[in-house]
Amino acid sequence: MNTFGKLLRVTTFGESHGPAIGCVVDGCPPGIAIAAEDFRHDLERRATGRTRHTSQRHEADEVEILSGVYEGRTTGTPIALLIRNTDARSKDYANIAAQFRPGHADYTYWQKYGHRDPRGGGRSSARETTMRVAAAVIAKRWLREKFGVRVRGHLAQIGEVQPRGFDWNAVEGNAFFWPDATQVAELETYMDALRKSGDSVGARITVVADGVPPGWGEPVYGKLDAELAAALMSINAVKGVEIGAGFGAVAQTGSAHRDEITRDGFESNHAGGILGGISTGQQVVASVAFKPTSSLRLPGRTLDVEGNEVEVVTTGRHDPCVGIRATPICEAMVALVLMDQALRHRAQCGDVGDVSPRIPAGKHSSKR
Amino acid sequence: MNTFGKLLRVTTFGESHGPAIGCVVDGCPPGIAIAAEDFRHDLERRATGRTRHTSQRHEADEVEILSGVYEGRTTGTPIALLIRNTDARSKDYANIAAQFRPGHADYTYWQKYGHRDPRGGGRSSARETTMRVAAAVIAKRWLREKFGVRVRGHLAQIGEVQPRGFDWNAVEGNAFFWPDATQVAELETYMDALRKSGDSVGARITVVADGVPPGWGEPVYGKLDAELAAALMSINAVKGVEIGAGFGAVAQTGSAHRDEITRDGFESNHAGGILGGISTGQQVVASVAFKPTSSLRLPGRTLDVEGNEVEVVTTGRHDPCVGIRATPICEAMVALVLMDQALRHRAQCGDVGDVSPRIPAGKHSSKR
Amino acid sequence: MNTFGKLLRVTTFGESHGPAIGCVVDGCPPGIAIAAEDFRHDLERRATGRTRHTSQRHEADEVEILSGVYEGRTTGTPIALLIRNTDARSKDYANIAAQFRPGHADYTYWQKYGHRDPRGGGRSSARETTMRVAAAVIAKRWLREKFGVRVRGHLAQIGEVQPRGFDWNAVEGNAFFWPDATQVAELETYMDALRKSGDSVGARITVVADGVPPGWGEPVYGKLDAELAAALMSINAVKGVEIGAGFGAVAQTGSAHRDEITRDGFESNHAGGILGGISTGQQVVASVAFKPTSSLRLPGRTLDVEGNEVEVVTTGRHDPCVGIRATPICEAMVALVLMDQALRHRAQCGDVGDVSPRIPAGKHSSKR
Amino acid sequence: MNTFGKLLRVTTFGESHGPAIGCVVDGCPPGIAIAAEDFRHDLERRATGRTRHTSQRHEADEVEILSGVYEGRTTGTPIALLIRNTDARSKDYANIAAQFRPGHADYTYWQKYGHRDPRGGGRSSARETTMRVAAAVIAKRWLREKFGVRVRGHLAQIGEVQPRGFDWNAVEGNAFFWPDATQVAELETYMDALRKSGDSVGARITVVADGVPPGWGEPVYGKLDAELAAALMSINAVKGVEIGAGFGAVAQTGSAHRDEITRDGFESNHAGGILGGISTGQQVVASVAFKPTSSLRLPGRTLDVEGNEVEVVTTGRHDPCVGIRATPICEAMVALVLMDQALRHRAQCGDVGDVSPRIPAGKHSSKR
Repeated sequence: MNTFGKLLRVTTFGESHGPAIGCVVDGCPPGIAIAAEDFRHDLERRATGRTRHTSQRHEADEVEILSGVYEGRTTGTPIALLIRNTDARSKDYANIAAQFRPGHADYTYWQKYGHRDPRGGGRSSARETTMRVAAAVIAKRWLREKFGVRVRGHLAQIGEVQPRGFDWNAVEGNAFFWPDATQVAELETYMDALRKSGDSVGARITVVADGVPPGWGEPVYGKLDAELAAALMSINAVKGVEIGAGFGAVAQTGSAHRDEITRDGFESNHAGGILGGISTGQQVVASVAFKPTSSLRLPGRTLDVEGNEVEVVTTGRHDPCVGIRATPICEAMVALVLMDQALRHRAQCGDVGDVSPRIPAGKHSSKR
Repeated sequence: MNTFGKLLRVTTFGESHGPAIGCVVDGCPPGIAIAAEDFRHDLERRATGRTRHTSQRHEADEVEILSGVYEGRTTGTPIALLIRNTDARSKDYANIAAQFRPGHADYTYWQKYGHRDPRGGGRSSARETTMRVAAAVIAKRWLREKFGVRVRGHLAQIGEVQPRGFDWNAVEGNAFFWPDATQVAELETYMDALRKSGDSVGARITVVADGVPPGWGEPVYGKLDAELAAALMSINAVKGVEIGAGFGAVAQTGSAHRDEITRDGFESNHAGGILGGISTGQQVVASVAFKPTSSLRLPGRTLDVEGNEVEVVTTGRHDPCVGIRATPICEAMVALVLMDQALRHRAQCGDVGDVSPRIPAGKHSSKR
Repeated sequence: MNTFGKLLRVTTFGESHGPAIGCVVDGCPPGIAIAAEDFRHDLERRATGRTRHTSQRHEADEVEILSGVYEGRTTGTPIALLIRNTDARSKDYANIAAQFRPGHADYTYWQKYGHRDPRGGGRSSARETTMRVAAAVIAKRWLREKFGVRVRGHLAQIGEVQPRGFDWNAVEGNAFFWPDATQVAELETYMDALRKSGDSVGARITVVADGVPPGWGEPVYGKLDAELAAALMSINAVKGVEIGAGFGAVAQTGSAHRDEITRDGFESNHAGGILGGISTGQQVVASVAFKPTSSLRLPGRTLDVEGNEVEVVTTGRHDPCVGIRATPICEAMVALVLMDQALRHRAQCGDVGDVSPRIPAGKHSSKR
Repeated sequence: MNTFGKLLRVTTFGESHGPAIGCVVDGCPPGIAIAAEDFRHDLERRATGRTRHTSQRHEADEVEILSGVYEGRTTGTPIALLIRNTDARSKDYANIAAQFRPGHADYTYWQKYGHRDPRGGGRSSARETTMRVAAAVIAKRWLREKFGVRVRGHLAQIGEVQPRGFDWNAVEGNAFFWPDATQVAELETYMDALRKSGDSVGARITVVADGVPPGWGEPVYGKLDAELAAALMSINAVKGVEIGAGFGAVAQTGSAHRDEITRDGFESNHAGGILGGISTGQQVVASVAFKPTSSLRLPGRTLDVEGNEVEVVTTGRHDPCVGIRATPICEAMVALVLMDQALRHRAQCGDVGDVSPRIPAGKHSSKR
């Protein structure tokens, strides 16, 4: 189960402090232009060490294409991508081998396998998500070129702080993927205080896909929203996923929630662009909750592998808010799900052709 | 994609107003005692027409076992279950064929397939979930008998109303699966007013699995929480899924969220019983948001299949709060995921044996 | 694993003498015209009791369509097909419960599951193949209408007897699917003597698919020939599968085997229409070996379930050559594989378009 | 579809003359001792350049373990194996880009993808099978250590030449995997003449698995024999697969074919150790037909990519009988299928326990 997707299948491998991490992207259509440098942009957006607010581990993250590309274009055969681990300071993690960090997968891997690679969290490290971002570079390109689909994410909350304004142009202009540039200084201060305290906070990320045509997604168990939920929940530290109005729908009335339709299109988008598991042609909107990292300088109680009570303190390089650089990871999972569903739709319904009437996307109500 | 699960595979079929609905449960271990009457209890819990607060469609929902059971025990071959549709008043739905109900899958099916069965929503009807509940009867029994695992759900919110107290014993004693018996009269009044108004509200359901041993779940894409998210999001009308603290984790600090460990066990359960995608041995806790039904007596704007603006009014039998009877459906999806993961764990890690130290389940913090 | 196929997925269920057998065909494109009577022709071709040379069990084999078809056309949702078992004389099989018939699956099911349905062989009965034939009716129609692909089979050997001449028109004119009408009387005599002797013989069946375009099939593990091999080997009593020259290729030289190409097309077809796992545009040719049935009136030695040596004699209704009516079953499996591959090809390579040069199919060398 | 297996999943990648080939082995149980040098033995058995009778391409084939192994034991996370391509003389293959070699996948890849990597056949090269052999080293070890299962293969025919005697000890003592040492000189002469002629011949390989317990394999579409057929047919140049008596069963009578049973065990093994898709506890026996390689020094007719008739002559390094070094590849596929089925059996039937009576394996009749 290190493979994701039905037709576009991404298999990742590698541990945080092993020799390398990598992935195999199978089922990719032939003829897509791709080169090693194309991976750089999104990998840097995700990279640690980008600001003082994220982990100071520095990874070059140079992608080597091992297969599946010939003369600059995909051939239809599996595309293997490899990144060597270069800045793996295993000594930082010596104590993980001996005790179970609370809030981490140390204990559960130990119970499942009876044996684990403790270096940097091994396979359970968020380092694995690097390859999701890499694989999705191909998916994003195909979706953009073939359908005009654009997948973008932004931070929607850090701790208690929420954006006051919203501007897509602001998002890529700051280290927080924050949609209101006027709040960045405030966030810097907030994060500095947090880092100083030794504690951490959670975050909320919203991902929006524009341009998704109606018809993608498969009832009943392959619903677009169900697959988005699995994809996003599979990211390290995620504890919740919403589509459209999400948990806000609990207190809504049906007359407020249902997105009425006129000739000008949908009057709102509480559905998040999905009805019955199939895209409506509106923006597809998903929102994700990240828990605060459990690696803290503040001491905590736990057991060691002998069952003794011990105190745990994390001194290694860690993010006070893991959600900050998770935006490209969330985008990646959304892009991979969309491309997989697009291929599946073409397989089954390639004969259907254009169906009328086509309802315009209409108004994009914000989530709350 | 009408199949759910990797090793325990449930394939459902059937439309709301077709001749029958059914499922095939494949991969089930041999030797489980099962009879047609065993399905009755959970099907009744889910059934429409149970109270005046749910749809008045009356289905007998008698399950016929077509295969896979011999002399009262499963044989290991596929178990086919069939329910004939007996109360399918197609005339109620004549207008669905001509227009796209807002908030329903009418338009998306139309766009995907270019052709659809409009009777009662056809395949997109929640009638399909009957077979999920039926299939899960087998999963619940196996989990209970083999591991002592118990999967239970309750309503955690209707509209703005939340439970004041909590008692599992109360849950099965009222038609709302409500954990505080003292609020039932209040809910009755609330629902009567709602039904009278012609509008609807959303709901939140929480499912808890007790007794899940540590070690179930597969990193990285087969994480227990990721599969729960997909399973629950695949239920009709669901817009959000949380594990443990869920979106509440966004505003938590790491020192508050991480579940510290002592010899007496975990000090809290913000994780919802899952770390790194693998069960910890604590309660597994998932929470689900149901949107308000979009089938209302209040008129709404939409288009017909010719593209003309029309007014839609639903006069058929519908629930003012679809979440009310969704509790057994949510339990069913959790049970199916757990059994599938248990089988997969045994396949890969059947040699591992007991691993020490085993941390007691400890305290079960409520979700918020 | 009672599901076959990746995108076109057929799940079958049912035991030989249980209440019913059936299947669910999932992933089928919408808009295919299909009705209950369309299944009749191929089910009759496969049916027992057609001549005195096959088992005298009489099954009406009336297919009921339970879902997935609306107003005579497939909707894209799962198509469930059901056949009630009407002529199940369980008394004939009373002794199977107590002993392991040699050459049958009695012992292996017993060892695998520790429990089995012995009535008529239960799930291991060839009765299951009825649903393969039914499901393939849809696949054959789609392949024929959309691509002009035609899948046909014939008997190529019974015991030591081989066809002297070859004419497709002869095949459907006799009960043996035999391609030389002048040999039918001889075969009748042969079979009568065989039935009288109480013994049985094996058979070879060849299936040919005309009109398959180049490009279907997926390297490396989803090769068209690999999937044909699995599909055909999964039929009861099959012991061997060949593509094109098959085992004849062992003694061939490369200069004789390779199918040279001119402007007029391929000069021969030793490849059986598949190179590198992908169709060439020639006829796809597969050949299958059926073992002689092990259910004989001649006594044989075996053990009973207590481990005692006993004599086994089959007195029930059985075919002296199970291969005879297996022709439509082999056709069915080839058709299902082809349709599944066609859908997968469209998913991945739907953008490729027409590729030149296109080599004409050319000469169709017979297999040996 | 570059992934093989259901629970033990092997994903391979890489082209013959790209930077590297590799694989990811997922689903492997934890705790298996494995090191880079463990791959050497089987890779050398498969290697080109071992004798003058196989291709003179020299590959070091040094396996690097990139993940999934910690302190010398598997951890349960995906095991990535990498081999750099070091002796890739692309100039030898310059002409492949321009024309379609008959009997090769050049034309079919061209038609499927509209674009291909022509260097050494790219992905369609038998170089890919190196990774199958590597992955199976782990499977063979697990099968041997946990169940005492041993998977061995030998050549059973080259061209018209068949073994006169049979001795497993002889097989590993000569470059032909030939079971009669007295024939080796004769084979050397035969192969020298063949190479001199510029032509090639086919071969037959038989693989035998000893020690497989009864109960492995899944009816109906996951039959052990069906999966062996797919696995073996997926190997380059394979045109046929037989289980047990195979095509020999066509002319057998039922009384001769059925393997009678006494207290001493099965009286013969025409079934090849599989009944109803499930292992009987006897030797599992599969036989495979390899076509003669189509890369010949003898000129042949074909078209170029412009559609012009051209003459093709292969001057690169090629095997006059590709079957010779395919023995470890066939063993590999059998071992991977068996391990996958063993895991699946444990998942579903792990509760069944020992079932009596257990029939001894008894006599191992040779295939014909």
